[in-house]
Amino acid sequence: MSEHDLIPSIASLDQADLAAALQARIDAKTKPLGALGRLEALMLRLGLILGSETPRLEAPQLMVFAGDHGLAARGVSAFPSDVTWQMVENFLAGGAAVSVLARQHDLTLTVVDAGVAHEFAPREGLVIAKIAPGTADALAGPAMSPDQCATAISAGRSLLRQRPGNVLLLGEMGIGNTSAAALLLARLTDSPIAQCVGRGTGLDDAQLARKVDVLRQVLQRHGEAVTPLGALAAFGGFEIAMMVGAVLQAAAERRVILVDGFITGAAVLVAARLQPAVLQRCVFSHASQEAGHRLMLQALQAEPLLDLGLRLGEGSGAALAWPLLESACRILAEMASFASAGVSERG
Amino acid sequence: MSEHDLIPSIASLDQADLAAALQARIDAKTKPLGALGRLEALMLRLGLILGSETPRLEAPQLMVFAGDHGLAARGVSAFPSDVTWQMVENFLAGGAAVSVLARQHDLTLTVVDAGVAHEFAPREGLVIAKIAPGTADALAGPAMSPDQCATAISAGRSLLRQRPGNVLLLGEMGIGNTSAAALLLARLTDSPIAQCVGRGTGLDDAQLARKVDVLRQVLQRHGEAVTPLGALAAFGGFEIAMMVGAVLQAAAERRVILVDGFITGAAVLVAARLQPAVLQRCVFSHASQEAGHRLMLQALQAEPLLDLGLRLGEGSGAALAWPLLESACRILAEMASFASAGVSERG
Repeated sequence: MSEHDLIPSIASLDQADLAAALQARIDAKTKPLGALGRLEALMLRLGLILGSETPRLEAPQLMVFAGDHGLAARGVSAFPSDVTWQMVENFLAGGAAVSVLARQHDLTLTVVDAGVAHEFAPREGLVIAKIAPGTADALAGPAMSPDQCATAISAGRSLLRQRPGNVLLLGEMGIGNTSAAALLLARLTDSPIAQCVGRGTGLDDAQLARKVDVLRQVLQRHGEAVTPLGALAAFGGFEIAMMVGAVLQAAAERRVILVDGFITGAAVLVAARLQPAVLQRCVFSHASQEAGHRLMLQALQAEPLLDLGLRLGEGSGAALAWPLLESACRILAEMASFASAGVSERG
Repeated sequence: MSEHDLIPSIASLDQADLAAALQARIDAKTKPLGALGRLEALMLRLGLILGSETPRLEAPQLMVFAGDHGLAARGVSAFPSDVTWQMVENFLAGGAAVSVLARQHDLTLTVVDAGVAHEFAPREGLVIAKIAPGTADALAGPAMSPDQCATAISAGRSLLRQRPGNVLLLGEMGIGNTSAAALLLARLTDSPIAQCVGRGTGLDDAQLARKVDVLRQVLQRHGEAVTPLGALAAFGGFEIAMMVGAVLQAAAERRVILVDGFITGAAVLVAARLQPAVLQRCVFSHASQEAGHRLMLQALQAEPLLDLGLRLGEGSGAALAWPLLESACRILAEMASFASAGVSERG
């Protein structure tokens, strides 16, 4: 498959007339000018993505992409790789944080096995789209082949295409995937690796130093992997590659993309380096506690909605931010204007 | 009425055993230790207030207290005083931001006329508990008499006592009430007035300078008003005094008090200076854009949940933060532990 077939072209949303109409609508609401703060910027963004002065969010899809990482064997995570499949079971059984939040907010939760080192029994809510049982060790060679990378992106696009609705909430699970995300961030933004790495699921100081050391070696090993797709294949993982496809497809269909934290951010970063207008379709749910996320948010020109010190992943931050998107749409649609409510404007 | 009858005694929540049990419950959940960040502190607080490892939020009451301010005639607000009653009508007609958000989250919305300069027709959702049609001009004399102040606090307690549920969401409306809140903050924390004053509904630089100047004169005029109740009577307003009563009663009944922004914060500040253990029952919904709010949050030892640049009041910030409280309770109740889900703990 050529890159031309793999990567859809994402047009820029140039809608000056709609932007002006949305801003006028927001400013006419019965409140002091700008008094709803960043919620007003959110209203504007949702209106522009969905092409309406009164956007409606429909059939939100919370998709959690899971995969294992060969690099985990190098001791870059506080938890064993088995936790990836165990947490997939937990998502499906309804016991994980994201399961609870999806129930609270009536979000359709789908777990995607993008490349977990485990054979799952088929069941509702699980999509088995395994590329391989975990990526290869990125310190020994590329995490995945170019073909595997293309297949994962294509599968992500296809999965998205089959889902209803106009909102994608991104989540992920994969022991070792903060390492892959940090590597992508370092390479694609040309940043020092030490600024991109965090404690993941809870490394202590010595383990963190070791993680930085391992990742520095991985970067040196793959000095030639400088393109978005080249870096993605070199560093992995399958869940990130599949999210790249899902993000590209969602952007092409003008869905709202609600981004979770550090790892989903890495997928958006890769997608945005391929098609920059992807970022116009994104809403960033929260600023993660993971150290590299500040740099990631800068690279994505993101202003996240929440800042609660979260560092769980799974899409939990996206699910927690979800009601703010609903509020933004309801306020646009339902809140009265000074004229309609008979309220005096400023003196 | 003596102060002894007016102000309930609020006992400190000393529950070391419950705190330890809650923390153990949170730490056993299938997530890295601390990975839900400030949501975990919220779980702990809700559990301690409601006295349960699995607290349940019941029949949340969003109460918007409205009143007018004599000081508004001195040009301290960008909007005319008529906007107070017009916005009350807007709340009741369902067109204000807080009306939309209350519908979204199924919060019972009650508007309380604590002292609006307007005669409202009785209707559902409106409680007429008017002390007087607006406070007196605080630059000419006290905003209210000691009797009016006591009556307002007592009315707030009584209103709360009649409501079901275990959560109070605080909201307010009153042209001029950022001035009263700034005066209370300056006096009760002994802070320079310039640090306590903000642009309210949207003053420009010259109007802001004028507001600071007027408020400085008011503080000088009432140099003797140094007690919480003395300052409250001197500066107003009726809606703030009634909220002081509602907060005290809610705290006495161990309800969760979800505080909105700057003006509701001033009511909590007065209540906490009377009964410090009130603060243990509070959750602070957001950091407001209003300049004095940072200082207010410090005085209240508050760590607000949201930071969205809001400055609308009405209880809109409390309503926007509400789903996070529900999430905290659901996670405590429904999320699996490592043991129950069969997930491996850290290596």
